[in-house]
Amino acid sequence: MGVNSNRVEHFACPETNLIIPAELVAMPPLQIHKVCLPPEQSTFQKLKHRVSEIFFPDDPLYRFKNQTWFMKLILALQFLFPVFQWGSEYNVSLLRSDVISGLTIASLAIPQGISYAKLANLPPIVGLYSSFVPPLIYAILGSSRHLGVGPVSIASLVMGSMLSEVVSPGEEPILYLQLAFTATFFAGLFQTSLGLLRLGFIIDFLSKATLVGFMAGAAVIVSLQQLKGLLGIVHFTSKMQIIPVISSVLNQKDESIRKPKLFWVSAAAPLTSVILSTLLVFLLKSKAHGIPVIGHLPKGVNPPSLNMLYFSGPHLAVAIKTGIVTGILSLTEGIAVGRTFAALKNYQVDGNKEMMAIGIMNIAGSCSSCYVTTGSFSRSAVNYNAGAQTAVSNIIMASAVVVTLMFLMPLFYYTPNVILAAIIITAVIGLIDYQAAYKLWKVDKLDFMACLCAFLGVLFVSVPLGLAIAVGVSVFKILLHVTRPNTMILGNIMGTQVYQNLIRYREASRVPSFLILAVESPIYFANSTYLQERILRWIREEEEWIKANNGSPLKCVILDMTAVTAIDTSGIDTICEIRKMLEQKSLKLVLANPVGSVTEKLDKSEILETFRLNGLYLSVGEAVAYISSLWKA
Amino acid sequence: MGVNSNRVEHFACPETNLIIPAELVAMPPLQIHKVCLPPEQSTFQKLKHRVSEIFFPDDPLYRFKNQTWFMKLILALQFLFPVFQWGSEYNVSLLRSDVISGLTIASLAIPQGISYAKLANLPPIVGLYSSFVPPLIYAILGSSRHLGVGPVSIASLVMGSMLSEVVSPGEEPILYLQLAFTATFFAGLFQTSLGLLRLGFIIDFLSKATLVGFMAGAAVIVSLQQLKGLLGIVHFTSKMQIIPVISSVLNQKDESIRKPKLFWVSAAAPLTSVILSTLLVFLLKSKAHGIPVIGHLPKGVNPPSLNMLYFSGPHLAVAIKTGIVTGILSLTEGIAVGRTFAALKNYQVDGNKEMMAIGIMNIAGSCSSCYVTTGSFSRSAVNYNAGAQTAVSNIIMASAVVVTLMFLMPLFYYTPNVILAAIIITAVIGLIDYQAAYKLWKVDKLDFMACLCAFLGVLFVSVPLGLAIAVGVSVFKILLHVTRPNTMILGNIMGTQVYQNLIRYREASRVPSFLILAVESPIYFANSTYLQERILRWIREEEEWIKANNGSPLKCVILDMTAVTAIDTSGIDTICEIRKMLEQKSLKLVLANPVGSVTEKLDKSEILETFRLNGLYLSVGEAVAYISSLWKA
Repeated sequence: MGVNSNRVEHFACPETNLIIPAELVAMPPLQIHKVCLPPEQSTFQKLKHRVSEIFFPDDPLYRFKNQTWFMKLILALQFLFPVFQWGSEYNVSLLRSDVISGLTIASLAIPQGISYAKLANLPPIVGLYSSFVPPLIYAILGSSRHLGVGPVSIASLVMGSMLSEVVSPGEEPILYLQLAFTATFFAGLFQTSLGLLRLGFIIDFLSKATLVGFMAGAAVIVSLQQLKGLLGIVHFTSKMQIIPVISSVLNQKDESIRKPKLFWVSAAAPLTSVILSTLLVFLLKSKAHGIPVIGHLPKGVNPPSLNMLYFSGPHLAVAIKTGIVTGILSLTEGIAVGRTFAALKNYQVDGNKEMMAIGIMNIAGSCSSCYVTTGSFSRSAVNYNAGAQTAVSNIIMASAVVVTLMFLMPLFYYTPNVILAAIIITAVIGLIDYQAAYKLWKVDKLDFMACLCAFLGVLFVSVPLGLAIAVGVSVFKILLHVTRPNTMILGNIMGTQVYQNLIRYREASRVPSFLILAVESPIYFANSTYLQERILRWIREEEEWIKANNGSPLKCVILDMTAVTAIDTSGIDTICEIRKMLEQKSLKLVLANPVGSVTEKLDKSEILETFRLNGLYLSVGEAVAYISSLWKA
Repeated sequence: MGVNSNRVEHFACPETNLIIPAELVAMPPLQIHKVCLPPEQSTFQKLKHRVSEIFFPDDPLYRFKNQTWFMKLILALQFLFPVFQWGSEYNVSLLRSDVISGLTIASLAIPQGISYAKLANLPPIVGLYSSFVPPLIYAILGSSRHLGVGPVSIASLVMGSMLSEVVSPGEEPILYLQLAFTATFFAGLFQTSLGLLRLGFIIDFLSKATLVGFMAGAAVIVSLQQLKGLLGIVHFTSKMQIIPVISSVLNQKDESIRKPKLFWVSAAAPLTSVILSTLLVFLLKSKAHGIPVIGHLPKGVNPPSLNMLYFSGPHLAVAIKTGIVTGILSLTEGIAVGRTFAALKNYQVDGNKEMMAIGIMNIAGSCSSCYVTTGSFSRSAVNYNAGAQTAVSNIIMASAVVVTLMFLMPLFYYTPNVILAAIIITAVIGLIDYQAAYKLWKVDKLDFMACLCAFLGVLFVSVPLGLAIAVGVSVFKILLHVTRPNTMILGNIMGTQVYQNLIRYREASRVPSFLILAVESPIYFANSTYLQERILRWIREEEEWIKANNGSPLKCVILDMTAVTAIDTSGIDTICEIRKMLEQKSLKLVLANPVGSVTEKLDKSEILETFRLNGLYLSVGEAVAYISSLWKA
């Protein structure tokens, strides 16, 4: 790689070139600094750096540096099984906190488990199974101390809607169950791979704005659908779209609506309402035959379900698709919840490790009759507030669920379905976050658009498509910013070396004979044509302004490249092109403060040569000072 | 919108706050400037500004400002029909240049027209028709003076490959012709709409890197396919993928290869070789029966083909898809060629107007037996070098083609197909631009990747999919830059207010007790998690460095926001999060030089309040000076 400029050298820049023209009285001694290239690196070194920034931004092995082999072993164990980090310091006082919080979340987990399983069109018992095995595995592998693990509403409803599009849970319950376990397996596999391959940033593309809209849309759909349980409508569409759902409600004849027994239930005490309603139904059982109840539930812990996984056949594609969508959604929820509570207690949650923990717990779950689980927001909040200290609270909860599974199942016989519908509606209504949506509108209209698209997409199109549309809108937003970047005229703030936007800072004033333009984006193929046109328009307008105001004629255009954080070959061509065009107008084009990678690419493409003499400056201030001094000389 | 800070005000910033602590001897008088918000604008004003930047960056109506009604009318006519701009000044000397260049490109256009039509599996005569009507229309509407209009190789081969996947040109020639005209109609419609809706920036997404790879891949495919003509193989696959093409060549038995008559032909003189080879075949016609020749061509100008457009039926989707793909490709070529020659002669070509001109000429073409046309690079180069001055050279060329169509068609009877194959191969081999690919590799590895993906995608997958993959790679490149932005530590360059990358500038030195970080990208949902982790890692590493070097303890982290050109709600949350985490470590977080839109969003989200007292500075220099003075006081 040649260095083609006497103003640009690799790293070995001599300190400064001092030039002090006598005319510059108001200025400090004129110091012109050379623009340096970044230290030279081979392609391999650059690739290595890039890969490590992409996949290992957190430098996960830094703890292992300068350690003995024995310490490295212990650290590796602690790294793989966070239980070893806190296990050795565990004591009775921590245990007491964990028992209290564990029992508290168990009281939430049991009714939620049954309800969410129904949301996924699965037998209620599967919801309880899913509150037993996965929390145990998470307690060993997970790095969050407050995550309450179990089935969650979003993943349940998405699984229910996606699977019931191809298989009816009522007509082919076994096949449906097989597909659910298979989807869970693929969700786990997908999550584990994301963690292993350190591709966790993929879930970052589900922005908060998208999730706010998505969850609100899903909540509306589910609430409408659960009217089935509340109003007792039997022939209800299971399609997850608002038009069939609403028309199905509207088309019900009066006689087919059996009188609902309960419209409202407190969200705060799902267990209380389950117990009360079960008692009520039990006491009235001779009089109220029409009330649908859960009925018989099998006793005993999770049966193995490895033999129910479904790796060939016509529905495999749906199972994989469902697995990936629910996998992404449950990861997003689990990791966001984990990070939230970790930030409150000031510890770190490692995203990629969490993905592996959640993934492995779902793979194990799929072999033991569980469906997709993750860290649930409601349960984690209860866990945190009840004083949980470590993942042991998950073990306590799992134990409570086991006791329920072994001995208390007959008690649920008379639990009315309507109470489960009420629990679901209460849970999902809480997902509608008006305030967040309002804040999005106030702060960022395009974020609000993404949110709205997710909401409407889920409501009127379908769950996966709505999600895809919302991600598309978010990506479009990034591209729009790149395609139409901001450009502006800078002026000098009197008595300083600071150059700022003329329109924003009244103290800033134009520098006569100069036009100082800042470009606020990388220069890429996607915006190079636009920037060329826009810069020529700025120059045209500046010339018109000078003519109208009898200013001194324009002689030099300075491009402030500070915010041009990258350039590609099209961008380089554009710079050359602009330079040629300005030359034909007898205008000088100089670049101020190009960042390292841009300077390097300009050098490699050999256009630095054309900027060799006085075309490249460390700052706008130095460019203005030096060029003015040249004119005066 | 409230203003929540005593350090941030709308536009009405008082000049400066002068504070001069006696301790700061090395510094100039300490001037701390307030960070201003941009002038307040309503949502509607912002939307208007944004829309005008997206759709009207060139301010197309600026010529109409401050003009009389009569002048406005004339300017509007000139705007719509550029022929009025140069028409009034046209003279004999210009005409002479245009006649010479027009006749020169006609000599190229006739053999190219016949060959490219064969490339698109169309009757050769359609290629000549397409060199007559479209150039005439372009001469009236187009704004380039050097564009040589007619069929081009890329659009021809893409149309040939896409249409012959569904309809065999040999078995159903009429249906195939109908589809070709229909595709041309939709190409024109698409191009016109892009121009009318000012969505021209869509074609910018086909970066130069992508096109280099795409054209090379297409050239290889076409060259292999044309071996059919050159080697005289009869049963040759018409699928456009390299594996079937190569295996088809390799599987030919010896006896089925008729001895080729010509392997090589000069690229410089297609017409000469057509004439010579035609003469040769004519003279040898009694002896060489095996040579395939063009055969009978109908005399006369373009017949109307409006009745052949195909607006319903099973193949409509293919016609529309083909139209859009060939439309985009031909636009990209036409506009790039137009801009290239305009830049050489220092005049402007208006992209959106060009799109309308090319689109209208294709719609008109589809009704007069023409297929997709655009500005061809080879023809425009010849036109330019032959001295063309205005679009009249296109009219001269069209006239020459008409004379050929009316009187000279029988002369082509004995033109051997092999010579057309040779012309095609010569033309497409020229599309392989080794040097451009090498330059991409040298300057920008990711651009080279996009180029390679386009090449391999076209070669081994299919033309539209290869194109889609390459665009995907280009977009991925933008997203990657946003997802993993560069962050770096800045240091002060001694004796200046300039802060630069510590690794790049040896003169730059750390400021004790400060960590100055620059983020080189907008802060978005896609990178907020990464940036949070990365910034915390910088701080951790800095603290380790301080411990190892016995430096003064870290007290303040300055985020230089100059290159953070945008922020969204996730980004704002991240800034809050980092601030809270640093507070728990008793570290101060301040922001330096946030750009206008970022300041505004911080203000709207009400987190500026938390930065109210001494948390926001106009420049890194002022932040360092002011905070140091506070510590000393």
